[in-house]
Amino acid sequence: MAKFVVTPWEVTGDVNYDKLVKDFGTTRISKQLLEKTKKHTGKLHLFLRRGLFFSHRDFDKILDDYEKGKKFFLYTGRGPSGKTHLGHLMPWIFAKHLQDKFKAEMYFQLTDDEKYLVKNLTLDQTIGFSYDNALDVIACGFDPKKTFIFLDTEYSKSLYKMAIRISKHITFSITKSVFGFQNSSNIGLIFFPAMQAAPCFFPSELKKKKMNCLIPAAIDQDPYWRGIARYVAPKLGYPKPAQIHNKFLPGLGESGKMSSSKPNTCIFTTDDPDIVKRKIWNAFTGGRGSKKEQMEKGGNPDICKIYQYLYYMFEEDDKKLKERYNNCKKGKILCGDCKIYLTNKINKFLKEHQKRRQKAKRQLDKFILRD
Amino acid sequence: MAKFVVTPWEVTGDVNYDKLVKDFGTTRISKQLLEKTKKHTGKLHLFLRRGLFFSHRDFDKILDDYEKGKKFFLYTGRGPSGKTHLGHLMPWIFAKHLQDKFKAEMYFQLTDDEKYLVKNLTLDQTIGFSYDNALDVIACGFDPKKTFIFLDTEYSKSLYKMAIRISKHITFSITKSVFGFQNSSNIGLIFFPAMQAAPCFFPSELKKKKMNCLIPAAIDQDPYWRGIARYVAPKLGYPKPAQIHNKFLPGLGESGKMSSSKPNTCIFTTDDPDIVKRKIWNAFTGGRGSKKEQMEKGGNPDICKIYQYLYYMFEEDDKKLKERYNNCKKGKILCGDCKIYLTNKINKFLKEHQKRRQKAKRQLDKFILRD
Repeated sequence: MAKFVVTPWEVTGDVNYDKLVKDFGTTRISKQLLEKTKKHTGKLHLFLRRGLFFSHRDFDKILDDYEKGKKFFLYTGRGPSGKTHLGHLMPWIFAKHLQDKFKAEMYFQLTDDEKYLVKNLTLDQTIGFSYDNALDVIACGFDPKKTFIFLDTEYSKSLYKMAIRISKHITFSITKSVFGFQNSSNIGLIFFPAMQAAPCFFPSELKKKKMNCLIPAAIDQDPYWRGIARYVAPKLGYPKPAQIHNKFLPGLGESGKMSSSKPNTCIFTTDDPDIVKRKIWNAFTGGRGSKKEQMEKGGNPDICKIYQYLYYMFEEDDKKLKERYNNCKKGKILCGDCKIYLTNKINKFLKEHQKRRQKAKRQLDKFILRD
Repeated sequence: MAKFVVTPWEVTGDVNYDKLVKDFGTTRISKQLLEKTKKHTGKLHLFLRRGLFFSHRDFDKILDDYEKGKKFFLYTGRGPSGKTHLGHLMPWIFAKHLQDKFKAEMYFQLTDDEKYLVKNLTLDQTIGFSYDNALDVIACGFDPKKTFIFLDTEYSKSLYKMAIRISKHITFSITKSVFGFQNSSNIGLIFFPAMQAAPCFFPSELKKKKMNCLIPAAIDQDPYWRGIARYVAPKLGYPKPAQIHNKFLPGLGESGKMSSSKPNTCIFTTDDPDIVKRKIWNAFTGGRGSKKEQMEKGGNPDICKIYQYLYYMFEEDDKKLKERYNNCKKGKILCGDCKIYLTNKINKFLKEHQKRRQKAKRQLDKFILRD
């Protein structure tokens, strides 16, 4: 198995979330916090019910302030190095849920600069992916009046000005210890953490009012917020941005998160139904070697990617999910059944998503923030 | 005497220009190159006649290309950390001369970001100084149709995008060796060399045509061009920017260049006539202890700041300058005479400059480049 590594640029191996919570110094989302959330959202979102958003920093404080009348805005983003896959959608779907429930504004950063600086891509390519990825963001259903999508190289004025203020407080030593930068790192990448922290604060400048910020994002991005944005916030006189962290959607192979670098273990938002069918058919399951053995001994849903996909995103009904789990264990269902079931669920989801994605091409101007 | 140090952020001690040319690896401006220049400018500018613009990189190539019909643009700038003094004006006056003679466009960068990052100043302060300094640039008489003045935090889109392309090729190691950055340097300053190099190339992008760039600037700025812009140009497919370097206008004290940090040895463009009179009266001269001794033994114009000011900027007439030199040596004139003569010259110059500076307040919009 690949070594377990989680940094903002690399996630490999089977992820040990307990270790991440301990190493990063975040807080598990408690039952009490879920109850508090429920007061505002009604029935908890699937991602919270199933512990997929599982860790946080100051989310409790965000809710306390909200109850006292202090609103917050949402901030998340995407490094545009390729097509969008289902794993990317998790924090966006959750952000859309939070926007609905808390009437929150949403700022979405496309880091075309970062991906140009770390990958073998041209700036034209990362800008192209940015606009492509933006369609998926919009397709998640965000409110165009409350949602602001921006590219680092296009919304540079507000971003750069704020990043400069941040960067004055961040030494190269800090970025070495937080991100492992070295003397051979390029100076664009060394500066980039300031650009990534800027959206935690610039909306306060736009509105001329200091606002709380909540960042829904996969936990690998935590070092940015812990090491840079939260460190610098009091020095600049802004509230520390809060985070709520999700687990990684697994890839369809035996181990690792869903990653564009392994396209066969990865479902893209633009995949055709036939491609989805093939990918799911080839996914790693917890099934036995034969039908007979499966019926006698039962399968192992705990290691099965099909089950995990239903658990993560595609079986909204908790009762049905539990039944499927038990039936698998008891050998009452075969892998083929689950694969067909999941394929249909995903293709239904993608059909709607792709329809909204198509429509989004005409809506870009309503969402893209320029200065 | 202070130790002789020249970096982009520090110039102390008496400057050894031979050593700088050798250390920086630049080329002295030869008689042949002056002759070649003369073909295009007519009578050589005072700064060239007197060897004040004394060193270059590829200025000969710029002229060769020009003769073949390939135009160039000018680029220089200012770190806006305070008021403009006479020393700052030297490259600007020379750039205006080049603009006139070569019909060249001029790009002028105000590095409000840099000065915020290295000084104990707020961004509002460095932006304020930028607009104040811009008035002095305009007062030099540049053509509003061919001159583009911009602030790094305001013209960020074009600048940042180009800086990102540059920064991908510049490691922290390079900036360590070129500028002496350390692990304790802030990441904004580490990135800044890419912002300073960007105007060598972005005009080519604006015009969609690769253009030669000539940078008139004091020689302390050379490391930027040598270590960053010229290094990266071929990697990005642009011509290497050429430089033409001036000496520092001396301060009015015994040694060192004119520097805002010693306001009494420094004449600001906004100084009143009485203040100029007092500063010049207190300047360091090569005079003797008494009138009698001066008339007997003669003075020493070679160490005299009054003489140097006439030489650098205020005695256009080469013959008169030589006469004054000889008369001083022979004890025919006293320091008071020269001080009154220089005071009148400077005050006449400043009266006109201040008039144009006042008018410039209404012209800012014609010059400031925004995106």
